[in-house]
Amino acid sequence: MELTFLGTGAGRPSRQRNVTSMALTLPQPRGSIWLFDCGEATQHQLMNTPIKLNKIEAVFITHLHGDHINGLPGLLSSRSYHAGSGPLQLFGPQGIKDYIDAVFRLTSSHLDYELIITELEAGVIYEDEELIVEAHPLNHRVPCWGFRIVEKDKPGTLDAAKARELGVPFGPLLGQLKNGRDVMLPDGQLVRSGDVTGPDLRGRIIAILGDTVPCHGVGQLAQGADLLVHEATFQGDMAEKAAAYGHSTTLQAAEAARAAGAQRLYMTHISSRYRDEDMVALLQEARSVFPESYAGADLMSIQIPRRGELPQDSSLS
Amino acid sequence: MELTFLGTGAGRPSRQRNVTSMALTLPQPRGSIWLFDCGEATQHQLMNTPIKLNKIEAVFITHLHGDHINGLPGLLSSRSYHAGSGPLQLFGPQGIKDYIDAVFRLTSSHLDYELIITELEAGVIYEDEELIVEAHPLNHRVPCWGFRIVEKDKPGTLDAAKARELGVPFGPLLGQLKNGRDVMLPDGQLVRSGDVTGPDLRGRIIAILGDTVPCHGVGQLAQGADLLVHEATFQGDMAEKAAAYGHSTTLQAAEAARAAGAQRLYMTHISSRYRDEDMVALLQEARSVFPESYAGADLMSIQIPRRGELPQDSSLS
Repeated sequence: MELTFLGTGAGRPSRQRNVTSMALTLPQPRGSIWLFDCGEATQHQLMNTPIKLNKIEAVFITHLHGDHINGLPGLLSSRSYHAGSGPLQLFGPQGIKDYIDAVFRLTSSHLDYELIITELEAGVIYEDEELIVEAHPLNHRVPCWGFRIVEKDKPGTLDAAKARELGVPFGPLLGQLKNGRDVMLPDGQLVRSGDVTGPDLRGRIIAILGDTVPCHGVGQLAQGADLLVHEATFQGDMAEKAAAYGHSTTLQAAEAARAAGAQRLYMTHISSRYRDEDMVALLQEARSVFPESYAGADLMSIQIPRRGELPQDSSLS
Repeated sequence: MELTFLGTGAGRPSRQRNVTSMALTLPQPRGSIWLFDCGEATQHQLMNTPIKLNKIEAVFITHLHGDHINGLPGLLSSRSYHAGSGPLQLFGPQGIKDYIDAVFRLTSSHLDYELIITELEAGVIYEDEELIVEAHPLNHRVPCWGFRIVEKDKPGTLDAAKARELGVPFGPLLGQLKNGRDVMLPDGQLVRSGDVTGPDLRGRIIAILGDTVPCHGVGQLAQGADLLVHEATFQGDMAEKAAAYGHSTTLQAAEAARAAGAQRLYMTHISSRYRDEDMVALLQEARSVFPESYAGADLMSIQIPRRGELPQDSSLS
């Protein structure tokens, strides 16, 4: 799994950071894309990545502020140009259906694929064989949500050499063992899956939060996450201003990660008042509370390893 | 006066061309900006020009298709961040008020300046001391307009040496002569403005058209224009497809410029099927009908000289 930051700024685009969006690449071979928020020019940012619009199978919107949604009508429309664009699921706060309906009606827009819109309620909003997504409300100036993406545990890796030793022939029996099933060999010998596979691969937990002040929902979403993406609009000593605008500081984001027992924190939604040269200080603040704190940057991709695996991205250096 | 193409593509952004927008810089010292259309990421394109959002004093929208308007909510919102943003006039087709109201209501957007929205009717839609703007309907799949910007004639240049010869003292009398008024010198001698100024400077005419098939409105807008900006979505032999989508070809754009007696044609709204290397052929088609045909390109700025003045842009070579 890989997360690509498409926009890491707040409120309006700057030369350094576009407005909010990020793309989660689901595990291979599925490789589909889930998009989280869609600020203006998200489709433009995607042109700088290998991601094609027809690979996006779901869009999750945290809240209906323009810097998180103004790119949605254009991205949905452009997706129609791509051959093989299947149905697209759109999840967002109450009002997102009205927004899409109004903009599409007034701009005479039509899609060549099915758009399935779900207005969010707290709890599980999506589940398939691999993944479960929960939504929980946050606390911002308008209704705002965070998403907790939980990958289901998978059977461990097959030890092919050991299976061969036990006499398992090359073929479908190996697949059954790998998928957790015990098998009977042609000679009547029983081979248990557990004897030839490693421990279950624990699924990853990714928490992607919208704009918020510290609140109960943050903990629900972030608990034990392998990766927490949390806004940090302001520096640590600006908690009062942050609260007035419904936002968090670097210190509050780091405290959320610490309290939740998260593995890694990526901060995003960073005010345009901060330039590249300010980021060292912002990171230091966060790391004083939670050492595994990092800052998102536009077009940065990060690998999300399973617990115990080594991360492969260079952004951790 | 200068026209900057911000987006010259059709339908959706590509790596070569963003969706439609262009910025007209009014004559100095006023130097204000009028924006024509506002496709997604127009505010991003402006970050690559010297134009600041608070210098934009009017926005003219040709029609409500997404590729001409999806950038408007974000641009209007970001303009609030710029100190000294005065009132902004927005002109557009019927429905533009509903569009702004709906998007701003659903995204909880508020502006820190006055937005004055005028829904278009045919005829003069704007006039000040320097400029008159007319709107006329075109023929597209949805109601669509073109704009004819007419600069008022100005008194000719003052011949200061000749005025001195006639005994006009340095001071305010020179200004009166320059502005077309005859003056009486202290010694009772009458000096006529016409004796010390060149011929009136003829105002420029700029026609900026929305998407259209060939129609009566094109001629009304383009008649005698110094600069005609006309869409050319398709190559010359695709008139049938162009008509089916409510668009024009290179040949039709060139024929419009020829029939209107325009000085120069810039084609825009070029389909993403055409790459940079195809543009020579498209230009040749247009020039076979109207030699002064050119193609707009993103971030290209062109000077609009008065009739008889030499153009200063290098794009004509």
